[in-house]
Amino acid sequence: MSDRTAAPAPRRLREWEQRVEVPLLAASLLFLAGYAVRVLAPAGAGFWRDLAAALVGAVWLLFVLDYGVRVRLSGLGRRFVRSHGLDTLVVLLPLLRPLRVVHLYTAVQQRREHPRLSLYARVMAYAGVAAVLLGFAASLAVYQQERDAPGASIRTFGDAVWWACATLTTVGYGDATPVTPAGRVVAVGLMACGLGLLGAVTGSFSSWLIQVFSREDERRPPAGG
Amino acid sequence: MSDRTAAPAPRRLREWEQRVEVPLLAASLLFLAGYAVRVLAPAGAGFWRDLAAALVGAVWLLFVLDYGVRVRLSGLGRRFVRSHGLDTLVVLLPLLRPLRVVHLYTAVQQRREHPRLSLYARVMAYAGVAAVLLGFAASLAVYQQERDAPGASIRTFGDAVWWACATLTTVGYGDATPVTPAGRVVAVGLMACGLGLLGAVTGSFSSWLIQVFSREDERRPPAGG
Amino acid sequence: MSDRTAAPAPRRLREWEQRVEVPLLAASLLFLAGYAVRVLAPAGAGFWRDLAAALVGAVWLLFVLDYGVRVRLSGLGRRFVRSHGLDTLVVLLPLLRPLRVVHLYTAVQQRREHPRLSLYARVMAYAGVAAVLLGFAASLAVYQQERDAPGASIRTFGDAVWWACATLTTVGYGDATPVTPAGRVVAVGLMACGLGLLGAVTGSFSSWLIQVFSREDERRPPAGG
Amino acid sequence: MSDRTAAPAPRRLREWEQRVEVPLLAASLLFLAGYAVRVLAPAGAGFWRDLAAALVGAVWLLFVLDYGVRVRLSGLGRRFVRSHGLDTLVVLLPLLRPLRVVHLYTAVQQRREHPRLSLYARVMAYAGVAAVLLGFAASLAVYQQERDAPGASIRTFGDAVWWACATLTTVGYGDATPVTPAGRVVAVGLMACGLGLLGAVTGSFSSWLIQVFSREDERRPPAGG
Repeated sequence: MSDRTAAPAPRRLREWEQRVEVPLLAASLLFLAGYAVRVLAPAGAGFWRDLAAALVGAVWLLFVLDYGVRVRLSGLGRRFVRSHGLDTLVVLLPLLRPLRVVHLYTAVQQRREHPRLSLYARVMAYAGVAAVLLGFAASLAVYQQERDAPGASIRTFGDAVWWACATLTTVGYGDATPVTPAGRVVAVGLMACGLGLLGAVTGSFSSWLIQVFSREDERRPPAGG
Repeated sequence: MSDRTAAPAPRRLREWEQRVEVPLLAASLLFLAGYAVRVLAPAGAGFWRDLAAALVGAVWLLFVLDYGVRVRLSGLGRRFVRSHGLDTLVVLLPLLRPLRVVHLYTAVQQRREHPRLSLYARVMAYAGVAAVLLGFAASLAVYQQERDAPGASIRTFGDAVWWACATLTTVGYGDATPVTPAGRVVAVGLMACGLGLLGAVTGSFSSWLIQVFSREDERRPPAGG
Repeated sequence: MSDRTAAPAPRRLREWEQRVEVPLLAASLLFLAGYAVRVLAPAGAGFWRDLAAALVGAVWLLFVLDYGVRVRLSGLGRRFVRSHGLDTLVVLLPLLRPLRVVHLYTAVQQRREHPRLSLYARVMAYAGVAAVLLGFAASLAVYQQERDAPGASIRTFGDAVWWACATLTTVGYGDATPVTPAGRVVAVGLMACGLGLLGAVTGSFSSWLIQVFSREDERRPPAGG
Repeated sequence: MSDRTAAPAPRRLREWEQRVEVPLLAASLLFLAGYAVRVLAPAGAGFWRDLAAALVGAVWLLFVLDYGVRVRLSGLGRRFVRSHGLDTLVVLLPLLRPLRVVHLYTAVQQRREHPRLSLYARVMAYAGVAAVLLGFAASLAVYQQERDAPGASIRTFGDAVWWACATLTTVGYGDATPVTPAGRVVAVGLMACGLGLLGAVTGSFSSWLIQVFSREDERRPPAGG
């Protein structure tokens, strides 16, 4: 939303963003995969865990570099930090990085000029992809924090995924909940995302209904009802 | 939604679908009933359980045959699998089959040319029917998985129905929750449906309000307010 | 919704409804009060409990009589049962009776010709009144079922109210939940109402935003943005 | 909503409100900070707790004075109490006072004449600020009630914040819930706010989608679809 109100980005910034979008998306998925290996690899597989940690660090460095290039190309300096809040957050919390898939998706859509009817399908696809990526990242982060905590109810990665699903849908059974402060901070972030996901599903359904309805209005001659 | 953007189906496919719609709907309810007998019949009633299993298998075969006929008649080949996602899912998970009631409902509505005011009533009826069928199917599936699991909190079919209601409405008490991996997979599906149900209820209420409002606008002369 | 699509009610039916609306509303609140005394009076107060039971029975009879008169005046016979679903449900489950406050409210509004801007305030007032009445009735019914049940977590009327609030808002802590079949049936009804309440709040907020927005559009000349 | 339908406030009232808005907002944040010190200061820090209590009392007196001045300036007398429900509530429950930030925000926006596109951003910012302030105030109040209660599951301020997050998002795990009557009353208020927050998020998402959609409609020539 905020992107529309901002001044038009300089051409070089846009060119940079278009060129690095696909590689950076691949890098962000690599980041997630590396983090997953780091968390889920058995304690014995020391080599693979170290390799994954190195990969994660290298990709993060890549993200920071890209952010720096974009700050410079935008010519906005510090204002870039404020006007591109999501980008800044994503550099600090790279597990949220895959959310930039949404940006790529929009770019692809605009090139293909898809018919407008798929707007709701697009929102649903966004929400679905975001839910899966966020849920997976949160499961990993919470599992890493909780697995060795005393009195934890999240003891396996399966428990963590189960907890993430119950949280994202705002069902919240409470049979598996984080008990460590770090795990709870991740959980609060996931709850907020669940609220947003609910908003996206509800909102797109609502606007779809309104559209179907107004189209029916146009087709029929206005009756007395 | 996707049906509108797709190319118009060949006439023979439409004729086939219209002819088999009611029989297949009856078959899908028979499938659900057979599955219910299979799960709920007491251990002693071996004959009835076998009969129900045979019935379930036979109806499933029927669904696969119908799917094959429609793929051929559509002339789309493999693209049919992608463009008719719900149908494909329903062949793989026949417990979801009764959701096709919605299709039948739409067809019946279009023939009768119901007044448009009932759009919200229709959406509510869809959501209600879908909730009841999904909740019943999920209760059966979860009960089958959980009843003999160690440490399970879902021990009777009543518990399973209670759990399904708390899940579909996203209340999620957590006094009865699945503990087996298979039961949890079913539960995640039901949670997603609960989110959709919430979206349907909220969305149709929202668009109903907007309609009432815009109709009031039309009636009165525009005031200064 | 259904009232608009139905044929116009005969004049005598409307006259009857207008005349009995206020007395019947008072009777329904009396019914709720009588039921509350019946449930909440201490075991020693046998006289008051009997009196309350008699009152509840008498008011119920009144409701049945009114329903009979309306069926006859409508001239619809059995079709009345189907076309007035809420009324029929309310005769069978008189604890839901106070929901007819909404009807009265609408009638009063139409007489006073309130400005349209209060539509959202009206919906919110409806939802609020319905939530309070339903929550109170469900608390009473659940408390009556649960207080002597073995293993119950709802032991006092305060617990029942607390449970009802957590259920209506779909929070669902699960620290107090019904364990008897009858209590759970009441709970499922309340969950469905919570879903509807959420839909009402969300929907009216959504349509209010859309209205504010379209009004801002009208005021300003269309800009390039 | 109600402010628009009310009669225009006298000029002196508006001037008073504009003049005291910023100081009172600062005072309300001071009130919250003082209450936080009162609740969270260790038992040994008697001096700071007394100072905080004195500060809280003084600020409350300020609020009551401001309310009195506004009642007099409005010239409405007792009707002011009814037509300014939020203001009255806020004087009685000063922990809700920071919600008046929303009023200030609106005033600032109207002066700056922000572009209309930021309406959704504004609603989101409102909802976010309200959620944080309400969650913090409720955490403090519940922690004060619960920390010494027998059988309490909220034992630290961290638990209280965790509980508040799970409640505001309607997730409701139930691993930490208030057990005292006073704590539960606060909780019910927070649940209602969670419902409203959900409504705000969903509603603004929904109306944003509708706007994006209608804008796409304007850009393209109307097709046959």
